[in-house]
Amino acid sequence: MRIGVLGAGRIGRIHARSAAAHKTARLAAVFDVDAKAAGAVAAETGASVARSMAEIIEDKSIDAVLICTPTDTHADLIEQAARAGKAIFCEKPVDLSAERVRACLKVVADTKAKLMIGFNRRFDPSFASLQRRLASGEVGKPELVTILSRDPGPPPISYIKHSGGMFRDMMIHDLDMARFLLGEEPVEVSAMASCLVDPAIGQAGDIDTAVVTLKTKSGRLCQISNSRRATYGYDQRIEVHGSGGMLRAHNLHPTTVEKATGDGFASDPTLHFFLERYTAAYRMEMDTFVDGVTEGKKLEPTGEDGLKALILADAAEESAKSGKSVRVG
Amino acid sequence: MRIGVLGAGRIGRIHARSAAAHKTARLAAVFDVDAKAAGAVAAETGASVARSMAEIIEDKSIDAVLICTPTDTHADLIEQAARAGKAIFCEKPVDLSAERVRACLKVVADTKAKLMIGFNRRFDPSFASLQRRLASGEVGKPELVTILSRDPGPPPISYIKHSGGMFRDMMIHDLDMARFLLGEEPVEVSAMASCLVDPAIGQAGDIDTAVVTLKTKSGRLCQISNSRRATYGYDQRIEVHGSGGMLRAHNLHPTTVEKATGDGFASDPTLHFFLERYTAAYRMEMDTFVDGVTEGKKLEPTGEDGLKALILADAAEESAKSGKSVRVG
Amino acid sequence: MRIGVLGAGRIGRIHARSAAAHKTARLAAVFDVDAKAAGAVAAETGASVARSMAEIIEDKSIDAVLICTPTDTHADLIEQAARAGKAIFCEKPVDLSAERVRACLKVVADTKAKLMIGFNRRFDPSFASLQRRLASGEVGKPELVTILSRDPGPPPISYIKHSGGMFRDMMIHDLDMARFLLGEEPVEVSAMASCLVDPAIGQAGDIDTAVVTLKTKSGRLCQISNSRRATYGYDQRIEVHGSGGMLRAHNLHPTTVEKATGDGFASDPTLHFFLERYTAAYRMEMDTFVDGVTEGKKLEPTGEDGLKALILADAAEESAKSGKSVRVG
Amino acid sequence: MRIGVLGAGRIGRIHARSAAAHKTARLAAVFDVDAKAAGAVAAETGASVARSMAEIIEDKSIDAVLICTPTDTHADLIEQAARAGKAIFCEKPVDLSAERVRACLKVVADTKAKLMIGFNRRFDPSFASLQRRLASGEVGKPELVTILSRDPGPPPISYIKHSGGMFRDMMIHDLDMARFLLGEEPVEVSAMASCLVDPAIGQAGDIDTAVVTLKTKSGRLCQISNSRRATYGYDQRIEVHGSGGMLRAHNLHPTTVEKATGDGFASDPTLHFFLERYTAAYRMEMDTFVDGVTEGKKLEPTGEDGLKALILADAAEESAKSGKSVRVG
Repeated sequence: MRIGVLGAGRIGRIHARSAAAHKTARLAAVFDVDAKAAGAVAAETGASVARSMAEIIEDKSIDAVLICTPTDTHADLIEQAARAGKAIFCEKPVDLSAERVRACLKVVADTKAKLMIGFNRRFDPSFASLQRRLASGEVGKPELVTILSRDPGPPPISYIKHSGGMFRDMMIHDLDMARFLLGEEPVEVSAMASCLVDPAIGQAGDIDTAVVTLKTKSGRLCQISNSRRATYGYDQRIEVHGSGGMLRAHNLHPTTVEKATGDGFASDPTLHFFLERYTAAYRMEMDTFVDGVTEGKKLEPTGEDGLKALILADAAEESAKSGKSVRVG
Repeated sequence: MRIGVLGAGRIGRIHARSAAAHKTARLAAVFDVDAKAAGAVAAETGASVARSMAEIIEDKSIDAVLICTPTDTHADLIEQAARAGKAIFCEKPVDLSAERVRACLKVVADTKAKLMIGFNRRFDPSFASLQRRLASGEVGKPELVTILSRDPGPPPISYIKHSGGMFRDMMIHDLDMARFLLGEEPVEVSAMASCLVDPAIGQAGDIDTAVVTLKTKSGRLCQISNSRRATYGYDQRIEVHGSGGMLRAHNLHPTTVEKATGDGFASDPTLHFFLERYTAAYRMEMDTFVDGVTEGKKLEPTGEDGLKALILADAAEESAKSGKSVRVG
Repeated sequence: MRIGVLGAGRIGRIHARSAAAHKTARLAAVFDVDAKAAGAVAAETGASVARSMAEIIEDKSIDAVLICTPTDTHADLIEQAARAGKAIFCEKPVDLSAERVRACLKVVADTKAKLMIGFNRRFDPSFASLQRRLASGEVGKPELVTILSRDPGPPPISYIKHSGGMFRDMMIHDLDMARFLLGEEPVEVSAMASCLVDPAIGQAGDIDTAVVTLKTKSGRLCQISNSRRATYGYDQRIEVHGSGGMLRAHNLHPTTVEKATGDGFASDPTLHFFLERYTAAYRMEMDTFVDGVTEGKKLEPTGEDGLKALILADAAEESAKSGKSVRVG
Repeated sequence: MRIGVLGAGRIGRIHARSAAAHKTARLAAVFDVDAKAAGAVAAETGASVARSMAEIIEDKSIDAVLICTPTDTHADLIEQAARAGKAIFCEKPVDLSAERVRACLKVVADTKAKLMIGFNRRFDPSFASLQRRLASGEVGKPELVTILSRDPGPPPISYIKHSGGMFRDMMIHDLDMARFLLGEEPVEVSAMASCLVDPAIGQAGDIDTAVVTLKTKSGRLCQISNSRRATYGYDQRIEVHGSGGMLRAHNLHPTTVEKATGDGFASDPTLHFFLERYTAAYRMEMDTFVDGVTEGKKLEPTGEDGLKALILADAAEESAKSGKSVRVG
């Protein structure tokens, strides 16, 4: 299996490395508008630098593409790659507009293209293990899901302005995680949000602190808590209270060293951010994509998963504005 | 300081013991409609058994009363005791009707009676320490408060029917804790609730699984998660994410013993229920009451605290029914 | 059961309170050379102040005595109390000389007196639970026992001088714990020791940092680690590696509060010292004594337990000096 | 820098992969008596398969060799490689005979060869961090070092027979760790050992459960605890009690998932064995070797470190047999 990567920025480089390290796949080509970035990835992985994205998409010898370009290009590229018969891995989100996502997924369906969306957290060893054990019934049926997710610090205001807003940009990961864990689709969404971290974020029309509640048809509940800031690192925890017990996954830390003095016991902050925290998850994610394509298995998370998380994000934003819970699905 | 206790049930006995153990106070008299229960407390504490509640309230040699009778008698007894010039400790809630509470607190204000409401969790050493450290600014301003509170199992249906509902009976503790930690009054309340634990609870018109979101004027957010069931014991955790860091308090366990085998590492369930978990809190609560009365200090939690928690519970119930967030205050 | 307490110092007061709080026992009398100390205990417990220890020992209405006087009086008082037919609880150690202990235990045996030695740690809820679970075979046979025990700071040099040395004064608790856990008698003792905390301790002829290894007949091994100083509080941990798994008991802390900031995660120091750490143990110890006497059960730890721990301490001291392991038993 | 690897067994393959993954080094050649093993490593890393070890050692284009062959070939190969001017990384131990090690290190010294010994644990991120923080004085001077090290299960008897015995084969890692942490050379060694895990190990003349105490000139103490079996995985913990506090490093686990039920809280066993636990350490170790050679820095752990750990192992064995502490250095 020969792979081309579109976009050689921070996340493109990670996926390129994972693809290159896969035991059977080969990273064949890379493109980025920044030739230097593409060159660096090529040097590191043995891939060749393509002159354009089209060159990769049209290359018959390439079986799959990894779409790691800016969000507003995702849907177009998915459609092009789908029509070219490529297997597609696309970073979340497909698009910031649910309408656009639906149209794109129609092309995917019509072309019978294979598409997997990059919700990396599903592949974190702890979260994946928790979900498997939950699904196997170890603690009965899920009743209350708690997701705490906080970034170490806010992105630049320039990023905020084109992010689609905190619900679509940041919380979408947690909304996907909620669906992953609840075992049923949410039918009701309620949200509250504030701008507490940086007034400039508010001036840019966004919020930086938000909570959401989801309810499924049978009454399962989920609470999500987000902040754009955590002084102690990247805070990523999940917890499921079920009819027969509770499962939770804690944060990861650089070392296990603990110091005891008169001030008490002190240990490391959490791993700083997603590159450190989800190193294993990114690797597992790409292995899943490659193996899934190779073995002809269903690829998950699907494009539909991407759409559903976006619909929940839209509903959350609407609820935060209206003060009313919003029905979905 | 001589104290009389009205009601010698489970919680009355605890407060009676704490009062008797106080280094300066003396438990003088006890009454219960169940003479045996009153006798048992008297035997253990050296108090005399009164023939009626009126006898205690009218006894000029008694300085303070502890009201530990059924909820529907609280407001009347507070008024009687206030008019008799007693310092009053009353178990939560003052009443299930906010209207009735307001009328009662008016009597308290008019008579200048001293009144303290039994929100025991504020006196838990860990929760009290967390709140003091938060108030001192150790982690900046609170932004996101998380309160997880689950009972080991539901009460009998007969209790449910007269409980005032889960929000007023159980979550009221968490709503008080939220106010204790947020440092500002909530102005908006949103809730969702389900009946997942026992259909009989739903048939009795109540719910057993509920989540609430609160928002203060400046935008601070709080999430509360409640279940009437936790297989692993009484789950009582709080967490405050502030602008400068995070403070959290974990569960308590009977022992620190940990076992490691091929199945992994295993440690104790949490302490079973409130009597075990809040042993130290109940003692500290009564010491605070006695010392506060003796030293003429302001008694907290106040009657107003009791009223405000009830108003939040009412709003939560309304929100869970209407699907809209409810403004308060 | 009526109890007299000999010695109303720090530890005497603790045992007096526990005895007074027992549901069936009554603290009848207290004596201390410091009349004020005796008076304080009497005021708190309702006991009367005796004019002499003899008065208590000879009082036919008193069933049991608690010996909480300085160590060099223990053996004499045990003998007197044994001859007077009293049940006896004596603080460790019986004496600093194994010869004297043997003679004393002979009197106890001849008079058939009931004697229990105050090795309080056996009654700590966590340690007691660990030992019960170990004895029940939960982790197979014990193979490696690890005992870490460190005081928050050294006692005054004046105390050191009459303490009998660190092995007999401090490590004796750990040597008893080792016997409690190993399930077999140690037959070989090896020790190394240093003076690292305070040179004045060395000048007084003692050491302040010591480690001991014990071996039983079947080859089970135990390591003990002691320091007279721990900046982070009173460090008291035990761990047993068995053929089928491992059991360990962790330290106790004043609260469960944890703070997370850019410096990492921080929690409380350990409980400061034995009065705080072993509060529950002291209460359980006295209950065990009273209930054991009342119900005619064998009292443990026995005088023999006291002697055996002392013999191990003697052997440890000899080994630290000679550089050779010492055979015992 | 071009590297050749001698021996393509389990550990050779790990080092080969690390060398191949290094950003500047290149794995040039591999040899193993098992041609299939060499071929597998070659296929994975792009190295060529050599016809003999001599071919690699004599290849002028190769700058460094990794010696991953059986122990009894190490000293000869170090000498040959040293004479051929290669930088040398050699798995521990250099030899089971201190005499032979001394002779070998003389050749290394005479040829001015660069030599690094594979004590992988020094490179574990948690252990390395602990040591750095200790060396920087964060908790004052070390006073009591505790090292707990247990394998998940014993090796085959055939391995035991040629292992050099538990002290030289297994505990040598802990003896090196002790030297790494104590900050002073041990001058006294005391040991006790038993055969508790498998009588066949005793019949083969070895022991499977052992403890050692070390003392340095200034009186610092270290306790090591070893077992050939731990049902809960590979147990690797270190702890240093210093004059100003305590530092410890805990075990690592596959996930952070915790389950709570009526049985209590349960989490994962430790990572199974050294390949899993020390993945990061092996990578860091090879990076340190390559970077050290490239940048002309002193390579540590040195051959002298290998010798000193062996001398301590010899002393431990002697002490376990004689019942006397043994002076070293």
